[in-house]
Amino acid sequence: MSETEKPKCHSLAKDEGLTNGGNIVSSNVSDEMTEKLDLATVYVSDAQYNRNIFFDTSPQAVRLYLLYNHWFMQTLVYVFIIINLALALFEDPAVVPLPIWATSTIEIVCLSAFTVRIVHYAKVIPKDKFWKDPKNICIIIIVTLSFIDLTIYGALKTSGYFAIRWSRVLRPLLLVNVTEGRQLRRAFRSIRNALPQISYVFLLFMFSVLVFSLMALKLFGKRGLFTIDGSPYFTDYLDIVFDLYVLVTTANSPDVMMPAYNYSVFFTIFFILYIVINTYTFMSFFLAVVYNNYKKYLKEEVRQLVKARRYKMCRAFSLLQETRGEGGEPVVTQAKWNHLVKLVKPNISIAHRELLWSVLDDQNKGHIGKFAFVQLADLLSIQVITVKSQAHPIQICFPSLYNSSASRFIRYMVHHRMFVYIYDLIILVNAVFIGLDEENPVVSNAEWGFLALYMLEIILKLYSTEPRAFFARHHFWNWFDTIIVVSALFGTIINSALKHSGGYTSRQILDIVFILRVLRLIRLVDSIKRFRSIINILIKIGPTILIFGQLIVVVYYIFAMVGMELFKGKVRFFEPNSTSPDQEYCGNPLLKGTTFAKLNYCKNNFNNVISSFIVLLELTVVNQWHDILYNYRSKSFILEAFLVEYTIDKSDLQTSLEKKIEELELNVQQDGMDTGLVDAMESNDSDLGSSEAGKQKPSLMFKIASRRSRTVDGLLQRMFETDLRPEDFNEEEEPENINFSNPVFDSV
Amino acid sequence: MSETEKPKCHSLAKDEGLTNGGNIVSSNVSDEMTEKLDLATVYVSDAQYNRNIFFDTSPQAVRLYLLYNHWFMQTLVYVFIIINLALALFEDPAVVPLPIWATSTIEIVCLSAFTVRIVHYAKVIPKDKFWKDPKNICIIIIVTLSFIDLTIYGALKTSGYFAIRWSRVLRPLLLVNVTEGRQLRRAFRSIRNALPQISYVFLLFMFSVLVFSLMALKLFGKRGLFTIDGSPYFTDYLDIVFDLYVLVTTANSPDVMMPAYNYSVFFTIFFILYIVINTYTFMSFFLAVVYNNYKKYLKEEVRQLVKARRYKMCRAFSLLQETRGEGGEPVVTQAKWNHLVKLVKPNISIAHRELLWSVLDDQNKGHIGKFAFVQLADLLSIQVITVKSQAHPIQICFPSLYNSSASRFIRYMVHHRMFVYIYDLIILVNAVFIGLDEENPVVSNAEWGFLALYMLEIILKLYSTEPRAFFARHHFWNWFDTIIVVSALFGTIINSALKHSGGYTSRQILDIVFILRVLRLIRLVDSIKRFRSIINILIKIGPTILIFGQLIVVVYYIFAMVGMELFKGKVRFFEPNSTSPDQEYCGNPLLKGTTFAKLNYCKNNFNNVISSFIVLLELTVVNQWHDILYNYRSKSFILEAFLVEYTIDKSDLQTSLEKKIEELELNVQQDGMDTGLVDAMESNDSDLGSSEAGKQKPSLMFKIASRRSRTVDGLLQRMFETDLRPEDFNEEEEPENINFSNPVFDSV
Repeated sequence: MSETEKPKCHSLAKDEGLTNGGNIVSSNVSDEMTEKLDLATVYVSDAQYNRNIFFDTSPQAVRLYLLYNHWFMQTLVYVFIIINLALALFEDPAVVPLPIWATSTIEIVCLSAFTVRIVHYAKVIPKDKFWKDPKNICIIIIVTLSFIDLTIYGALKTSGYFAIRWSRVLRPLLLVNVTEGRQLRRAFRSIRNALPQISYVFLLFMFSVLVFSLMALKLFGKRGLFTIDGSPYFTDYLDIVFDLYVLVTTANSPDVMMPAYNYSVFFTIFFILYIVINTYTFMSFFLAVVYNNYKKYLKEEVRQLVKARRYKMCRAFSLLQETRGEGGEPVVTQAKWNHLVKLVKPNISIAHRELLWSVLDDQNKGHIGKFAFVQLADLLSIQVITVKSQAHPIQICFPSLYNSSASRFIRYMVHHRMFVYIYDLIILVNAVFIGLDEENPVVSNAEWGFLALYMLEIILKLYSTEPRAFFARHHFWNWFDTIIVVSALFGTIINSALKHSGGYTSRQILDIVFILRVLRLIRLVDSIKRFRSIINILIKIGPTILIFGQLIVVVYYIFAMVGMELFKGKVRFFEPNSTSPDQEYCGNPLLKGTTFAKLNYCKNNFNNVISSFIVLLELTVVNQWHDILYNYRSKSFILEAFLVEYTIDKSDLQTSLEKKIEELELNVQQDGMDTGLVDAMESNDSDLGSSEAGKQKPSLMFKIASRRSRTVDGLLQRMFETDLRPEDFNEEEEPENINFSNPVFDSV
Repeated sequence: MSETEKPKCHSLAKDEGLTNGGNIVSSNVSDEMTEKLDLATVYVSDAQYNRNIFFDTSPQAVRLYLLYNHWFMQTLVYVFIIINLALALFEDPAVVPLPIWATSTIEIVCLSAFTVRIVHYAKVIPKDKFWKDPKNICIIIIVTLSFIDLTIYGALKTSGYFAIRWSRVLRPLLLVNVTEGRQLRRAFRSIRNALPQISYVFLLFMFSVLVFSLMALKLFGKRGLFTIDGSPYFTDYLDIVFDLYVLVTTANSPDVMMPAYNYSVFFTIFFILYIVINTYTFMSFFLAVVYNNYKKYLKEEVRQLVKARRYKMCRAFSLLQETRGEGGEPVVTQAKWNHLVKLVKPNISIAHRELLWSVLDDQNKGHIGKFAFVQLADLLSIQVITVKSQAHPIQICFPSLYNSSASRFIRYMVHHRMFVYIYDLIILVNAVFIGLDEENPVVSNAEWGFLALYMLEIILKLYSTEPRAFFARHHFWNWFDTIIVVSALFGTIINSALKHSGGYTSRQILDIVFILRVLRLIRLVDSIKRFRSIINILIKIGPTILIFGQLIVVVYYIFAMVGMELFKGKVRFFEPNSTSPDQEYCGNPLLKGTTFAKLNYCKNNFNNVISSFIVLLELTVVNQWHDILYNYRSKSFILEAFLVEYTIDKSDLQTSLEKKIEELELNVQQDGMDTGLVDAMESNDSDLGSSEAGKQKPSLMFKIASRRSRTVDGLLQRMFETDLRPEDFNEEEEPENINFSNPVFDSV
């Protein structure tokens, strides 16, 4: 692999004017070296986070670029986007009305922030690249239009004219077009790519519906049948099309079939055929086509991502490389590497850094070649938890007490399997008590008992496990338990205090207490190994589902804005105790006698942004067809993510890191891997002696974090890792025709 | 590959007492050779159809076995099974009542046929194998129990007692247990295998529903809310569980949410969370788990199938092999091979057989080794269509007329692309006319015009294409067109004759005519390339869907039998013009005032087998949960089948066969591959000269048939072909631990 690339990396170094790049061997870090390290840092972190921004390589631009990518700046951008989107809550038609001057001021602040951000971006990348990027043009247009709309709206409103805030539909597009929205852009892109294929199936499906409708018209239209409402059955072609279209979602089955069935049993053949062909076959076909296309395009995108990442690492290498001996391979020394890692990940522990180095520099040569260097970006994205084995605070303060036989017995008990079983039983009993009427004094008093038991559990566990280890960041269930129990305790106390003081019981507090009590039952899941693994999968694919949350917000927001302008006030909701005669028909005479009014759907309206979102959600849920694309696409994504989590082994790199940890005998016991406390306890309970007085553990241990906190990009890459290996790990030429929307590295 | 297997095949030959198996070189086919050929034939056809029956290898048993596998016997078995199942139509509660003696007689005939079949089977395979096979035991038990039940039922009925035909639930099990039901057994087996994994997800899902229900009870139970019917909202735990369970199918959304939403907008969060977690996430998870498990087990089964097939071919080879020269490889001569192929596929054309030989014997050596021989089973299952290029009958009878310039112009016209476009336009216009009121005289007369146009099209095509080629078995659309048009013509004539004669119009005939007219529109699909490919995929996966049809019949039949005994007569349907007061509540006072009666669902009852099937289908469609397994499993199967059809390339073997055909310059133009007439025309219309006076075509041509007629086994094998190659094509040891339900070849 390395033979063919040497010249390329050299030439890269030359391209950037670093002609003596291969010969710097100096212990003093010169200015030039600092700049190079800065640039290399940027390359590595770009590779790590899959950023594809063609920034200026001048030292000043690099420093600006580092600032641009600072987490604080990125968070700030999202805060402003959320504030901007949330303005819909306060603008007419509002949930909480605010005067126009207030919302306008907030909007101007947000828009200014976006302007500053885009100006910052313009300073980082070359001018020609900036204007070639549709994202930047989009943001500029959105901000400009919003300013114009705001001005017009303000002017019209103050002079008392009718005005529409039309630029509000543009707001969610910022989510897509900001630099950080690359995963969302990828999602939209793969929808767009899958569209042509899907549209053919969709057209054929529609053709099938139309043909069936025509047949239904001919078969039933002249028979004089009536529906249960007394209206004529299947006499109007367009009505039939709509009815049969709805039948695909099975929402009106079997009602739509009953008049024909009552007339003759043979007509059911028509409906059975329809359901088999359109509901089952076509829907499966849709799923297959979407899944297939989705996978295909995603694979290509990930391939490009990996290519770009390798190219960036190669650039970083060429900046830091030096040649050992005559005609030797270019290498990077440990000193420079350490410097680089410190810059890329400032809060990395020395131990962790040394672990990474020992993985890369297998033969302990003190320098690494390009092949090893390139792996750094991947290695950094594997979360390694550094566990410092510390003595329990009580053991330090009162060693004799902590090591007494009573104390040891308690700790043995807590770590015993039975302890878990007993508490599972307690939770089950608690579930029954929760189900009972809480106004019964026995039940409400029992709640105190349960709370005491749970508190005892947490205290006992804290006693037998080192508190900092107990509350380590990756111990999800410990945090969950503690928060739930402590909040429930406070809630119950407040509730009971309120009750005793004035007889007044706040329903809100009681609701929260109830929710907390029920949530406690989820703990049961953690005790059953199979369930725990399913839950872990669900938690792991959480971040990926979030991307689709964003996608849905973008789509819903646009529809909600349009819907609100079109339908606000058309349907009104009256409080149940209202005496208005309009209540019967939701305040709209057109709805008199409709099923909509009869079923009391009045609150399903577009009168404010929250109602609009709920209406849109209902439409999505019931008539899944209305956004089949998003639906199937997300289904297909979730399917793939599940399959990956369900089947794939750890990546090679992760395995090699684990091996190294084991080699160094610094591993935490494997059973506690990604399971949290309970498993760790289970593996500890074999005998008392070994866990206490056994061989001295090293004071520092590592373990690979559960993949819970992996990024979406990481998941994507893992999806296709096995498919990618052969072709992509050999070629490292510049990724020329990458079709990211971001500008790409073309030949400098 | 061949080095390691030689000894094995030799030892096999010895095992069967054929010690001189390697030395027979005789042109006269001796008795012993006939027997060997018979046995080899059986092995090859077993391999071809994936039969895994451990039959006796004595010449007599082999001949019996050949009879047992004769297509006529197999068809007969299915005919009797269908008759047996169809008896439910005539038995009480009957669709068409028949006296007990009639149905009993038919049933006795069927049961006797099954008995004969199982006795035949017992004669074919060794006794110990017969009694070890649960399938045989099942059949014997089913037949015995049916006889007993029939006797008891007859005795009780004649003496006037109440009696139940309980053995009817056993009938569909015959479908699963007959030798030919191996694909159905495989389907059931993979359901059973996937069950444990699925049940964990299901349990967790149920846990989630229960927890949510508990939360709903606590949040809404005490708030005094009411549903739209006026009943208290969410006060009973079990009702809540049911409501939320139904919400997963989105059937009662948004009604179930409205009371809470009307009370407070915050409660929608509860429902949104519920839908996101249970409807979307868990359902995707289910699909992923089912798909994954299904794929895993199927792969293993197919692996075993391929192994068994290779083993059988190896056995056949060892029967026919002879050694060329000293220490040479054992080979099979062309003469023997020809003999074998003629026995395996009696109606194979000589040309086809020689084509196959030339594929196997690449270097024209006159004999083939084991590696080539083993491929025979796969080669035979590729359908090759032998197209004899014959002159048009009119050309033979009236050559001058047929070759006149007018005739040539007509043929040129018919083959022109415009011809297709014009007829597409005609169909579209026809669609509009169908939609219009057919009692309008203009419309009904126009129908005659359309019929004439369609007849003209068929005649013109028959004139310009050789009729036998036009009606070749694989030209689906030609057959479709002709049948539809000719039947529509007859139907319209009969209908019009009836109308003119007595003024009486039979609705049935009119219905059929209408259906035929609408079906004609499907032709449009064939003109659009993309649509055609989708339709072809749908047709191709047809046979695989049929297996699931059988599976559903088995399940439905059992439920229908139980349902009929339990519920027959409980709900009655009254004709719409009936004046009975019971009509209001379906003849059951318990249903008075229920939604069931109000929506006029009376015909959804268990009063006969057809009604029962329709009720079960409705339950499947609306509450997809009731048989989530079958649903998801079939979905997962269809998904996989679609993906395979959508992505996979032709198998290597098929490609090599195609190459050979091309090499021999005997191929029909590739464009007409699996597309039928239209494509063939399109590729012909380039210029008049070449299609007429071009180079003389060979009188015999081959083409690979569309994979339309492939077997399910073939599809399955193709699914995993790429995955299977490395491990399975090297090892040919006996398939010892195959877990087929059929007895397997263990060491003789």
